[in-house]
Amino acid sequence: MSLLAVGSVAIDSVKTPFGERERSLGGSATHFSVSASFFTEVGVVAVVGDDFTEEDSAVFRERNIDTRNLQKVQGGRTFRWAGEYGFDLNTARTLDTQLNVFADFNPQLSEHARKTPFLFLGNIQPTLQREVRQQVDARFVAMDTMNYWIESARDELLKTIGVVDALIINDAEARELAGESNLIRAARWILGQGPQMLVVKRGEFGAAFFTKDSYFATTAYPLEAVFDPTGAGDSFAGGFMGYLAAADRIDDSVLRRAIIYGSVMASFNVEEFSCDRLRKLTPEEIRARYLEFKEYTNFEV
Amino acid sequence: MSLLAVGSVAIDSVKTPFGERERSLGGSATHFSVSASFFTEVGVVAVVGDDFTEEDSAVFRERNIDTRNLQKVQGGRTFRWAGEYGFDLNTARTLDTQLNVFADFNPQLSEHARKTPFLFLGNIQPTLQREVRQQVDARFVAMDTMNYWIESARDELLKTIGVVDALIINDAEARELAGESNLIRAARWILGQGPQMLVVKRGEFGAAFFTKDSYFATTAYPLEAVFDPTGAGDSFAGGFMGYLAAADRIDDSVLRRAIIYGSVMASFNVEEFSCDRLRKLTPEEIRARYLEFKEYTNFEV
Repeated sequence: MSLLAVGSVAIDSVKTPFGERERSLGGSATHFSVSASFFTEVGVVAVVGDDFTEEDSAVFRERNIDTRNLQKVQGGRTFRWAGEYGFDLNTARTLDTQLNVFADFNPQLSEHARKTPFLFLGNIQPTLQREVRQQVDARFVAMDTMNYWIESARDELLKTIGVVDALIINDAEARELAGESNLIRAARWILGQGPQMLVVKRGEFGAAFFTKDSYFATTAYPLEAVFDPTGAGDSFAGGFMGYLAAADRIDDSVLRRAIIYGSVMASFNVEEFSCDRLRKLTPEEIRARYLEFKEYTNFEV
Repeated sequence: MSLLAVGSVAIDSVKTPFGERERSLGGSATHFSVSASFFTEVGVVAVVGDDFTEEDSAVFRERNIDTRNLQKVQGGRTFRWAGEYGFDLNTARTLDTQLNVFADFNPQLSEHARKTPFLFLGNIQPTLQREVRQQVDARFVAMDTMNYWIESARDELLKTIGVVDALIINDAEARELAGESNLIRAARWILGQGPQMLVVKRGEFGAAFFTKDSYFATTAYPLEAVFDPTGAGDSFAGGFMGYLAAADRIDDSVLRRAIIYGSVMASFNVEEFSCDRLRKLTPEEIRARYLEFKEYTNFEV
């Protein structure tokens, strides 16, 4: 196993302008690991209740995702999220959140998991992210977070940001975290907190990538039909980290390709509910869309 | 003269979070022509009052802009606009608009102007744009517009869109015009109205370019300090049209380069008030920033 992800496995209830689904497998660790599984061997660290069915389990099994650190709490209920998207599809309105078994989540990783070289800390409480980080002897660690932690656990969050290699967050979160409306200045501030690199997810506008001495940006795939944006950010992170974990080195050229593969995976993820699109995706489709990104962004000097 | 622009020459009063200027030369024809003048010979069709000073005139003269169709109304007052930008710098709040001499603007073009091969119809009343378009035996015509005309003169606007080659508008305008929140579908609808191509300006997120069978998108230049966004869209259009007018052909590769040169010019325009930055710009700086766009967006397949 080359890549490990900690995060949520959730049962979502999602409503979009195009339809609704009452019970949909979701959560950051789910979207991340299914996406990453197209590139490398990936394992999840998460917790579910006994409402987590054989059908849910199949999503991980089909993609050969290592679930030895997916804890099942007997008598517990899986984390639930219900949300709704309006026509602009940019922001979800949360209708309900039930932490359930997630409230007491305090993962103790197995011996083999502790030796995984690539680690992704999905969007969970920052102290917990750091505790997981400390258990893994990883070579490269990336993390996500959200506005809720920026506002309610800023000090803990900054400590966690200080011990990772890459922060992968969205545009509004980057500006809020830095307290700076200009993204370029916000990025510089964030890079001053410890991480070597910052990936900024910009939804339909693409992604931007910052290190102390380089900048890269890409547009998003021009989708005519975004069906369900849930998990876009995590499937992006999964493509990014999966590609890096499979590469034989990490340099500027590999990182740029990883950003494009992240964008490719996010674009597929949002085409259907839950992981439905990723479950039937093929490596040929991934490669074809990667080449379309080149076609859509290339120009001569 | 290879490129002609009709639009406003204005006296602006601008306030941004970084400063304010009481009397600042502005207007779509001004920003457009100063920007385009770095690429080709450009002329303006506009009207001013006798408050248009020698100092204002110098901006055009310095850049060798043909002002033979810039009409001066004795006893009239130049079009005035006052606006303010907040910290996000994305949208101006208009504080005051005085049409003045612009209210009766009804340009009758000189013989030499009627033979200009490239024509830009800046953001003015769509019927007036069409009247100018009909006077010019142009090979390639592009136009801009704004939400005000989309809402108040939709039928006239659609007629004008039907007689141009390229529409150059911003993201929100494209969606509003098409009545469609998805930009890709909005673009398809707009291309169905007549123009061969659509350029969508996305501010700090860059620009997207659509034809019936191709797509291109670029990020914006990563500016740490946007000082005054006034005229960004017109300087973009000026770079785009100026580059096209100077090229020996119009094909996909040339159009993509024109989009990048448009982005380059807009990025310089917003670095200072009015045309201050463009007035001291050099061709070497333009070329260097073009190459930076390549560096910031390139990735290997």
